[in-house]
Amino acid sequence: MRGVLEVPDELKPVGDMLLGALARVEKRFDDALLADLGPVAELCRHVESYRGKMLRPTLAILCGSAAGGPGGHASSPASASNGRGTQSRAHATHAADALPDDLITIAAVVEMVHMATLVHDDVLDEADTRRRGATVNSLHGNEAAVILGDYLIAASYHLCAGLGDPHYARRIGRVSMDVCSGELLQLHHRGDFALRESTYFEIVSRKTGALVALACELGARACAADAATQQSLFAFGRDLGIAFQIQDDLLDLTGDEATVGKSVRKDLEKGKLTLPVIHHLAAATPERRRTSLAYLESASGGPASAPGSTLGISASPTPGVLSSATDPARDADFALALEQTGSILYAENTAHRLVAQAKRVLRSLPPSPVVTMLDSMAEAVVQRAF
Amino acid sequence: MRGVLEVPDELKPVGDMLLGALARVEKRFDDALLADLGPVAELCRHVESYRGKMLRPTLAILCGSAAGGPGGHASSPASASNGRGTQSRAHATHAADALPDDLITIAAVVEMVHMATLVHDDVLDEADTRRRGATVNSLHGNEAAVILGDYLIAASYHLCAGLGDPHYARRIGRVSMDVCSGELLQLHHRGDFALRESTYFEIVSRKTGALVALACELGARACAADAATQQSLFAFGRDLGIAFQIQDDLLDLTGDEATVGKSVRKDLEKGKLTLPVIHHLAAATPERRRTSLAYLESASGGPASAPGSTLGISASPTPGVLSSATDPARDADFALALEQTGSILYAENTAHRLVAQAKRVLRSLPPSPVVTMLDSMAEAVVQRAF
Repeated sequence: MRGVLEVPDELKPVGDMLLGALARVEKRFDDALLADLGPVAELCRHVESYRGKMLRPTLAILCGSAAGGPGGHASSPASASNGRGTQSRAHATHAADALPDDLITIAAVVEMVHMATLVHDDVLDEADTRRRGATVNSLHGNEAAVILGDYLIAASYHLCAGLGDPHYARRIGRVSMDVCSGELLQLHHRGDFALRESTYFEIVSRKTGALVALACELGARACAADAATQQSLFAFGRDLGIAFQIQDDLLDLTGDEATVGKSVRKDLEKGKLTLPVIHHLAAATPERRRTSLAYLESASGGPASAPGSTLGISASPTPGVLSSATDPARDADFALALEQTGSILYAENTAHRLVAQAKRVLRSLPPSPVVTMLDSMAEAVVQRAF
Repeated sequence: MRGVLEVPDELKPVGDMLLGALARVEKRFDDALLADLGPVAELCRHVESYRGKMLRPTLAILCGSAAGGPGGHASSPASASNGRGTQSRAHATHAADALPDDLITIAAVVEMVHMATLVHDDVLDEADTRRRGATVNSLHGNEAAVILGDYLIAASYHLCAGLGDPHYARRIGRVSMDVCSGELLQLHHRGDFALRESTYFEIVSRKTGALVALACELGARACAADAATQQSLFAFGRDLGIAFQIQDDLLDLTGDEATVGKSVRKDLEKGKLTLPVIHHLAAATPERRRTSLAYLESASGGPASAPGSTLGISASPTPGVLSSATDPARDADFALALEQTGSILYAENTAHRLVAQAKRVLRSLPPSPVVTMLDSMAEAVVQRAF
């Protein structure tokens, strides 16, 4: 939640409950990575420093708390006192402690799967920094980072397989396959300047939407929500995840590095077409389209055509030799062109529409401060500038 | 089994049963990778071409058949007719069909985990060929290969989580963690010319022994063997796996590329100390030791000291710039030195001792042609030249 949402005063008890729950998740996460070998433990400790927004565990906990069935704990945080001070904190601690153990485990599992993708992404992106710290690959080399990512995936499955209900492991396995297939589809279309909007949504729905959705679905399950509620919260999370990704894409395109906190314009360099660019190419005049295509090709180091790449998947681009980075005039021209075709606005509106759709799911839940918190979080996803 | 063992005539019925069972495993493997997305399906089909010896599924099937309890199918292959022709083949097909479905699934799961490690290993080793075909990374780039490996891991867990008994998923998760931690420990000690024999065994027991062991253990479980038998077959597989790795290390050191079918002397280039080298450094005279250390340092491009590598894990070495590849005289001198300290023989004897230890476990099983086949396989592991 940190970074996605400032908690308003009236939701303070829910916020405190959430902090208590996230502390439990962090402990579960760390305990699962207690490696018996010194060098492995050291690498795992480094990964723990990657934890940032904790978006997925936060959603798991809030969805569980909001949607829990008779055996769940929906009412605990909702009924937490609205007062301040020691009594309220004690209440929040109690509410966090009362959350089902399976919910905490599932939140840790989903975050661990996410961490594994971050560690591997950093290798593939040749990224040096994450959350303003050094990446595993930059500190210990690519080999250590690839194997550490594999270790994290294995640890997440192991943690998950320890739950009494085998449904969790099946869903985690299935959705992890979806995440990977989304990433492979994205790779396949790298440098494909004819990418269709439907394919873009197929990609982001899998690579980002699916895991956020699963956090919501399984959080609800762990609090004994019924199957229909689990399913509708999956849809809630997927829409929110896609909106989150569109906002990420917009920040990459229009944000500045200092505010966003990581490198920007990586999508252009990597030949990844995102929603505003897809819209722009479809909406531009034939002449403007030609200019924009030429810009995209030079920004990505030319159309995808790695020798021997039958799938159109190019080898890693070499950062630092890309022409776009050194031509601010053409960057500015392209930014203006995106505005002129209304493409930035189009992407923003799409994200807002997805958030509105996600919020409609919340209305089917019993009203509570937790649901209000989820509503605010959904809004914050498209408001954030980092 | 193909490649590890020629089947003698008297074991033909068991061999035929095994071929039938492996065909079922291949189908289970392929079905689990039936991806809904075209580009993902294409990559998966490529991975299917990696299948070689099928050592792990073979062990799972034979251990299951040999050790199955009352609910298992131990007697089917053992009682298969010793005759030839149509009747015998029909018998073998029947025996293969009669094997429990969980056994086939577990064999496919273990092979899929193994395939995932091969795909990632090829990225890390910058390998161009595997089983005389092009690697995924060489065809489609490192990014596709890393994500495809992740996809295979996810698919293996998903397949495993579909089994009724959650014990399988827990064991697969735990042992996958062990495999990764073994690889991380090996990386940590890259270029460590003071590596102790106990640490070497810790590494190979995890990175190779554990998964072979698990194939044997879970194969037995799927055929309703009792817990003690599962445990002793885990020990059987672990010893066999370590012996297999020692043989692999010997082939890397002393084999020639044409026979072995892949690049040799990779361990020296990568600064990986294997059993014969560890023994040699301990047994050599101080003077010879100095010469050998100088050779090892130059072969691996110097002692491990990648800038910023607090764990001593160096970045990927650059193949093709290593001095050893161009100095056959020094290679021959080192090979002679290994012989003189009896280090090749020492490693061979260690592998033989492990195989003998593994074979002792087999004596506790009810005698049958399947057990005889396992015995021959154990022997073949240390006899193979490829």
